[in-house]
Amino acid sequence: MTIKISIDCMGGDHGPSVTVAAAVAFAHREPDVEFLLVGLESVIQAELKKNHAEHHPRMKIIHATEVVEMDDPIEIALRRKKDSSMRVAVTQVKDGHAQACVSAGNTGALMAVSRYVLKTMQSVDRPAISGMLPNQKNLPTYMLDLGANVDCEPLHLHQFAIMGSALVSALEGKERPSIGLLNVGEEDIKGNDVVKKTAQLLRADHERGLLNFYGNVEGNDIFKGTTDIVVCDGFVGNVTLKAAEGMGRFVKTTLTGAFKSNPLNMLGALIARGALKSISQTMNPSNYNGGCLLGLRGLVFKSHGSADKYSYEWAIQRAFDAAKNDVLTRISNSMAKLMPVADLASPEDNNDLMAK
Amino acid sequence: MTIKISIDCMGGDHGPSVTVAAAVAFAHREPDVEFLLVGLESVIQAELKKNHAEHHPRMKIIHATEVVEMDDPIEIALRRKKDSSMRVAVTQVKDGHAQACVSAGNTGALMAVSRYVLKTMQSVDRPAISGMLPNQKNLPTYMLDLGANVDCEPLHLHQFAIMGSALVSALEGKERPSIGLLNVGEEDIKGNDVVKKTAQLLRADHERGLLNFYGNVEGNDIFKGTTDIVVCDGFVGNVTLKAAEGMGRFVKTTLTGAFKSNPLNMLGALIARGALKSISQTMNPSNYNGGCLLGLRGLVFKSHGSADKYSYEWAIQRAFDAAKNDVLTRISNSMAKLMPVADLASPEDNNDLMAK
Repeated sequence: MTIKISIDCMGGDHGPSVTVAAAVAFAHREPDVEFLLVGLESVIQAELKKNHAEHHPRMKIIHATEVVEMDDPIEIALRRKKDSSMRVAVTQVKDGHAQACVSAGNTGALMAVSRYVLKTMQSVDRPAISGMLPNQKNLPTYMLDLGANVDCEPLHLHQFAIMGSALVSALEGKERPSIGLLNVGEEDIKGNDVVKKTAQLLRADHERGLLNFYGNVEGNDIFKGTTDIVVCDGFVGNVTLKAAEGMGRFVKTTLTGAFKSNPLNMLGALIARGALKSISQTMNPSNYNGGCLLGLRGLVFKSHGSADKYSYEWAIQRAFDAAKNDVLTRISNSMAKLMPVADLASPEDNNDLMAK
Repeated sequence: MTIKISIDCMGGDHGPSVTVAAAVAFAHREPDVEFLLVGLESVIQAELKKNHAEHHPRMKIIHATEVVEMDDPIEIALRRKKDSSMRVAVTQVKDGHAQACVSAGNTGALMAVSRYVLKTMQSVDRPAISGMLPNQKNLPTYMLDLGANVDCEPLHLHQFAIMGSALVSALEGKERPSIGLLNVGEEDIKGNDVVKKTAQLLRADHERGLLNFYGNVEGNDIFKGTTDIVVCDGFVGNVTLKAAEGMGRFVKTTLTGAFKSNPLNMLGALIARGALKSISQTMNPSNYNGGCLLGLRGLVFKSHGSADKYSYEWAIQRAFDAAKNDVLTRISNSMAKLMPVADLASPEDNNDLMAK
């Protein structure tokens, strides 16, 4: 089955030089993909030519005249730039021309545009952003929310857990991925009210055999790989993710500086280059690029804005895998099963607010 | 001037074998210190003997019959174990026998006992825990709160900033250390209500020349060293600190594993051992051991529970520096200047609650 993916070619710090190049590379190694390359036609055309893919049969250009800049306020992205590459790329999913969209654009704008164009899924109060971090088991720890919701109620965290579980189950082929609730301690009495009430909801699901709830986890458990999924509000998730990224850069700078500090250290690094390569492989954040906007009526993946071609290919890979494994239906089914009451409420309320 | 420090010798994962040994080592290199070693007399005596310091003139043993275990609930530590080494050590500060106390015991218990014994400082609503993380500028980033308060109002975060500023000013000799407010973005519109309102309070102080408020900072700024101080609530601070610790361990395991994976890598590591040593120096969390319980009427420092002798010495060093630089008076003066209204309220309220 061919998977069609729309690419917001103009998004990200580097635009088409990364996005188009990554799509071409991905298409070369994956026969079951078709790309809709959205953005300024002439620029994309030139980039395809540079990558010797101007006549590639699985590359189609969709012209869009505007570009959402990385520092554009959400308002501008949503209301002024109606022909932006971001919006047109998301619209391909809405209209059924693509099964997933990938963008490296401004996260807030992408979430707002996606929410407006695709609408929120039945039973979901608030969409969330899920991402991955490497862990000691050499597996990814999925974490959500990474910044879409800075204030959360237990109901929201509960829904994040359900959506995350369906996502990981599909992407990692684990039937019942384990869920940890991020807290300041493992004991039930630890944490604030929101976390304590969320734990009750998740425990009840666990007892009914609907979710695999491990219990509270702490910050260090993310990198230990104690659970497959770590659930938290978007404030904590965003700060933790960025702190981890910052620490990663700090480690890299320190390593590089030390090994270049004198000829002896340089020689040692040369001899042990196999070790250095394997370290950089294990810790490389590029391998974990590709956050998923969960809870929408369509699949949208967010690449890091500064992603290079290699890293962007990983975001495409995640979108491809999610579409292939029908993540959307799985989430929708899980939500229907675990959130039956909310089904009765109108899921359109919050979308209407945004459309005003 | 001699600084007297009380040591909760029984606290921490290793007890006297670390705490007494560290105190002896510190006393050897610092002539201006005197130690009150609190705990089981016979055990401390034996440990002093092992360290050839049984007749050291600046080591005094204070017998305490009970021990607060690492997993003791706060209730037990506070109400049942009235003759614990932790409580007796803190009481030395209260009674003026010591200018600071160091403990590697259970954080929750230490905060509760310290709060009960010492009481909260005039104008401070809630004590906080301040700690340090290394940054790319090869300086410490001070961060608070690290877990004493899982729910905070703007007033609390405001007070943390004032206390942190006074602490860092004293310890680092910076007259106006810069303060960053941890948030999900740099822009004023980012974040939740608590953070936005806190920013307003801090900005007002900045405009009056009372505090050096930088603005919002993000998770990665902690390791960049963008500001001297990072203020956040105890939930976010605790999770971020533990995530950083967890990531540090992950990096170390990965490095060690890679360099030991085959003879060639081992040879490279041997040749570049200078580089590896400098990396481990820069990143060594032991150098940053010693959190400060801020906002109490006495100085209490918290060492990591798993601290070894080297690491515990750092916690003692911090307590020594804080006492020597009269951090307590500085914080008290800053609070009186910046929190004049709160002065009128009774600071005893919350202490009474704990004493019930």
